[in-house]
Amino acid sequence: MKIACLAGDGIGPEIMAEARRVLDKLDLPGLTIWEGDVGGIGYRRHGHPLPPETLEMAKAADAVLFGAVGDPGCDNLERHLRPEQAILGLRQALGLFANLRPATMFPGLEDLSALRPEVARAIDLLIVRELNGDVYFGEKAIRRLDDGRRQGFDLMSYAEDEVRRIAHVGFRAAQGRGKRLCSVDKANVLETSQLWRDVVIEVSAEYPDVELSHMYVDNAAMQLVRNPGQFDVVVTGNLFGDILSDQASMCVGSIGLLASASLGEHQTEFGTKGLYEPIHGSAPDIAGQGKANPLAMILSLAMMLRHSFGLEAKAAQIEGAVSKTLADGVKGADLGGSAGTVEIGDAVVARL
Amino acid sequence: MKIACLAGDGIGPEIMAEARRVLDKLDLPGLTIWEGDVGGIGYRRHGHPLPPETLEMAKAADAVLFGAVGDPGCDNLERHLRPEQAILGLRQALGLFANLRPATMFPGLEDLSALRPEVARAIDLLIVRELNGDVYFGEKAIRRLDDGRRQGFDLMSYAEDEVRRIAHVGFRAAQGRGKRLCSVDKANVLETSQLWRDVVIEVSAEYPDVELSHMYVDNAAMQLVRNPGQFDVVVTGNLFGDILSDQASMCVGSIGLLASASLGEHQTEFGTKGLYEPIHGSAPDIAGQGKANPLAMILSLAMMLRHSFGLEAKAAQIEGAVSKTLADGVKGADLGGSAGTVEIGDAVVARL
Ligand SMILES: CC(C)[C@H](C(=O)O)[C@@H](O)C(=O)O
Ligand SMILES: CC(C)[C@H](C(=O)O)[C@@H](O)C(=O)O
Repeated sequence: MKIACLAGDGIGPEIMAEARRVLDKLDLPGLTIWEGDVGGIGYRRHGHPLPPETLEMAKAADAVLFGAVGDPGCDNLERHLRPEQAILGLRQALGLFANLRPATMFPGLEDLSALRPEVARAIDLLIVRELNGDVYFGEKAIRRLDDGRRQGFDLMSYAEDEVRRIAHVGFRAAQGRGKRLCSVDKANVLETSQLWRDVVIEVSAEYPDVELSHMYVDNAAMQLVRNPGQFDVVVTGNLFGDILSDQASMCVGSIGLLASASLGEHQTEFGTKGLYEPIHGSAPDIAGQGKANPLAMILSLAMMLRHSFGLEAKAAQIEGAVSKTLADGVKGADLGGSAGTVEIGDAVVARL
Repeated sequence: MKIACLAGDGIGPEIMAEARRVLDKLDLPGLTIWEGDVGGIGYRRHGHPLPPETLEMAKAADAVLFGAVGDPGCDNLERHLRPEQAILGLRQALGLFANLRPATMFPGLEDLSALRPEVARAIDLLIVRELNGDVYFGEKAIRRLDDGRRQGFDLMSYAEDEVRRIAHVGFRAAQGRGKRLCSVDKANVLETSQLWRDVVIEVSAEYPDVELSHMYVDNAAMQLVRNPGQFDVVVTGNLFGDILSDQASMCVGSIGLLASASLGEHQTEFGTKGLYEPIHGSAPDIAGQGKANPLAMILSLAMMLRHSFGLEAKAAQIEGAVSKTLADGVKGADLGGSAGTVEIGDAVVARL
């Protein structure tokens, strides 16, 4: 089991260290751990946010554990050299087309949400976001029109097979949960969405046990505020998924607790190859101060054990230890507590 | 002063009737009122959601007062015949490129929001959404690729002059409010956004009194949940504006109270030509029952008097009467009250 650990920028190394301690404690046989530079640190050390050696390592690994990228010192670089390009590059190079972002309220933490407790308490949804297509990876440029005006353009598109494979992920996820799938699009305006909707409906024939609904993205953004508890699994494209999944995370209130998995079609000996990362960013303002909450990173590790290595019991063991840590009141500043990064890591390790 | 009243579908005619009564009561000299069919009713009567005679009327008018469109009986029509196409067609034909959507908490109505009262109370923002460009009106189709696969595509684009004119609207709006403008884009992924950001920065040189900031759309969707009170004026493109303005409306909680203006460059004798409509839809489930809240429609009329006819005092008079109506506890079912459409209209007329 080969794991590439890419800690990245800001608080990335601190939270990755705690995830590594949890992994060590599990004492899994046959583990190989690699470490690589990515993001701003990749640029500073190797001249590129996704250095070739890091990319090779990620390709050779069975799973990638990813910290966070983002470095204010890189803000004025050309776009292709900025830290975020590392994550876009990895998604594309590894064919990670399915991003799974569960958003669940942790009992007792309702007060952290900007939503009323009774609204927040009901949140238990999974956003399945397509990650390899849409307006992210189409033709794009800033060009001069014939009359000399500058124009920026980006081609949005989906082909039917791209929609079909993510639809299957959505339906299967719904089968494993509440059996309701809501597909979000903007089919009243976009042809890309019209095809999306047509194909999702075609695929639904194979999942008679799942109740399918459709929602326009503007309405979905409203419903996620009004009553997020109405959703079970949401499947949507790359751009809408970017917006809605961040919105949903914030509804939960504690983005320091939310993990994500990005999966492809590639099956390893043990499971599906994937990349696992916390929802939150590199938080440069608190980097190096030992204050960052490592729980989302540790929960990303749990997702990795589940999806890439088929180690469901170990994943549940980590998740249980995290729940217990929270229930015992060990909380970082982001959750209104005072525990530091290492202290939280200690607490989880002690409860494994 | 020529006004085209397009009541549309569902509750449209009911709420339009109350706005008309308010207008009558003001007894403005020199008013010409036209009525036209639009949306599902346009399709049923004339075979098109935006019949040519309605379009001509809208073109000849100084302002369009628009109810709502949307009719479940039209859901299976081809896209270009569906009710929503009427509003897209009007925006384009009339060159209405600037959509102004104020979202303000009405005192005493904090309990209607899904957000905590202390978070909701602080909402006082204006979203300025571009309305004539972006992925809405670019080349689009579902086509067959060479290998036979279906592909949906939509071209997203902005030219610099399109960004410049909406940026000016945003900056001027900020000058008239809290002097803070937040431009929302996805410049880390989209070239369209990169040009958007570049041009907004260029335009900012002309408004040294306005503080400009930039935010990625995914972060904006989070911040609108976490702390919507941080925003003064938000300027953004057509697609992001569609999503964020609906989200912001729902944060307020009472979309039955929110109005919008869509303005172009065309100046009439009296002001800027525009289209005015409530944020909410045609609500077919309660149509014809006399239950709909007409206040957003009445507030749209106030916006019309302000922007298209320079009648600031009359606009403020209507807004004052609406506030008083609410303060006096005259509320529709959507606000937890029991007043019907006509009763609410009566209350406003009595308080003018
Ligand atoms: C950093 C950025 C390019 C990325 C995205 O838009 O996909 C991020 O927002 C995310 O959601 O992982
Ligand atoms: C009906 C639809 C085409 C329209 C839009 O997307 O612009 C609506 O959502 C709006 O915001 O006015």
